[in-house]
Amino acid sequence: MILCVCPSPAVDVTYDVARLSVGATVRVTRVTRRPGGKAVNVARVLHAIGEPVHVLAPVGGTTGAEFAAGLAALGVPTTLVPSSCPTRSTVTVVADDGTTTVLSEPAAVDCWDALREAVTELVAHADVVVASGRLPEGAPDDAFATVVEIARAAGRPVVVDTSGPALLAALAAGPTVVKPNADELAEIAGVADGSAPVAAAGRLAASSGATVVASLGADGAVACTAGPAGERAWHGRPAAPLAGNPTGAGDAAVAGIARALRHDPHAASPPVELLRDAVALGAAAVLSPVAGDVDAAHHADQLAGVTVHELADVR
Amino acid sequence: MILCVCPSPAVDVTYDVARLSVGATVRVTRVTRRPGGKAVNVARVLHAIGEPVHVLAPVGGTTGAEFAAGLAALGVPTTLVPSSCPTRSTVTVVADDGTTTVLSEPAAVDCWDALREAVTELVAHADVVVASGRLPEGAPDDAFATVVEIARAAGRPVVVDTSGPALLAALAAGPTVVKPNADELAEIAGVADGSAPVAAAGRLAASSGATVVASLGADGAVACTAGPAGERAWHGRPAAPLAGNPTGAGDAAVAGIARALRHDPHAASPPVELLRDAVALGAAAVLSPVAGDVDAAHHADQLAGVTVHELADVR
Repeated sequence: MILCVCPSPAVDVTYDVARLSVGATVRVTRVTRRPGGKAVNVARVLHAIGEPVHVLAPVGGTTGAEFAAGLAALGVPTTLVPSSCPTRSTVTVVADDGTTTVLSEPAAVDCWDALREAVTELVAHADVVVASGRLPEGAPDDAFATVVEIARAAGRPVVVDTSGPALLAALAAGPTVVKPNADELAEIAGVADGSAPVAAAGRLAASSGATVVASLGADGAVACTAGPAGERAWHGRPAAPLAGNPTGAGDAAVAGIARALRHDPHAASPPVELLRDAVALGAAAVLSPVAGDVDAAHHADQLAGVTVHELADVR
Repeated sequence: MILCVCPSPAVDVTYDVARLSVGATVRVTRVTRRPGGKAVNVARVLHAIGEPVHVLAPVGGTTGAEFAAGLAALGVPTTLVPSSCPTRSTVTVVADDGTTTVLSEPAAVDCWDALREAVTELVAHADVVVASGRLPEGAPDDAFATVVEIARAAGRPVVVDTSGPALLAALAAGPTVVKPNADELAEIAGVADGSAPVAAAGRLAASSGATVVASLGADGAVACTAGPAGERAWHGRPAAPLAGNPTGAGDAAVAGIARALRHDPHAASPPVELLRDAVALGAAAVLSPVAGDVDAAHHADQLAGVTVHELADVR
């Protein structure tokens, strides 16, 4: 199975409103609630396409109970570690005028040691480990790095999708794949915002040894590796440019990376099939009417249509 | 005790943010959660000043469990009727730039018959009945009117604070006191928005037979009655004009009305002490740093300072 480590789970609440006016009292016309957090979104996508998954997350309070019930209703296996910090919520306000506003509560845990022990136990049964999301308050800065070390010690490929100091620490521990977003990539690689994602990903691959996957938005994604012969890069492109809701496409791409690694533990280098899976699942998510969902038919269509070619020049 | 009938309870969530920008992802810096809904706010104020209260509300889902736990932690006695509709939330976004934006989920119940039976049982132990809040989906239009009828049949004074058709139906059943807000008053009395609250309240008192209490904002409140000798009106004024947070002052004023009726079942006419209590508790709420809270010292100060005089001319 694919172990999805979710240090910052959430109950994701979506409010439909006519218009969000700052300073007003706004009537919510529809409320939807579901378990969220980046690693949970990854697990939901994998579960939807029939991949075996297991979610590890801290839970607390009544929101934690709701989170647990939501995953149980989906049929997603879980290991939930009790925390005295209530599970956070996010509120996404979708207005009829086309705006989407996200209110994101801070995440906190007080059970990091128990979570770490659970990773150690579960990794023995995992084919791939995914660690994804924000570092919660109460977890050490090297929490993601620790997950990477545990996975490596067990010989499991490990994918990391986080940001800031947590990502830097994880990179030093040697993850198999990282998927920074454009802002992170620019910041870490020290290039101007979004100017040259391939060069930035290549530089990051060279400095870390990880395979670096970077989104190019509607144009697909690139994957960069670095070896004795230098840096190499591949571009995966959907069959047609995509129009739809990009929310959740990044988590779906991570699901694709994990799927590829489960089917071939060496898929990270060269990352041709890995990129095909990442682009196909990301594209299937964009085409879904519900943010971050995919259906098997969209996925199969996209998988057949994605083209991957190696780029001649990484810089 | 004072029975507070809360057909639309809520978990009131407050988010502190630097700025609420529509279309952005906004980091929440602080989250507070507490049980809410208008009748619960009334009960909280009464409980804080030592009046015996009892909350009757439907509850459902994990938010219902949180609502119940919150009231238990406050030490407020409750009768909670299970509903398969999850208890709603409200999200109030307070920004550092001074704006307050409220996202209000719709309320729904599927247990109205059980709630009505609970009112009938509890009213025997009540000195006063307060029915306050929005009419939830799933309750009949005459739900508030039914509460009024049950209270009247048992000889209990009953205070209603609601709006729209629910208020119109309740007025026809003969409540002791109603407290419409300015918009409601203007609409029901058929006068231009806020132009003449005393005249509008007087007209409403004449047509319904109820004592009508209307807020004048920082200038206190008026109470109007109608009898064989015509309409009469009193103005209750705080000792000094108030500056503070008016959120929750209306519910605190209703608490004052209920307190007066508990200490004297005939306080509604002439409503001198009733108005004194309403203005003092409303003022104490405005002075509180937490919306809708009051402390006993503020309340005692305000109670000593409020002046009430009869107006010579209601029209």
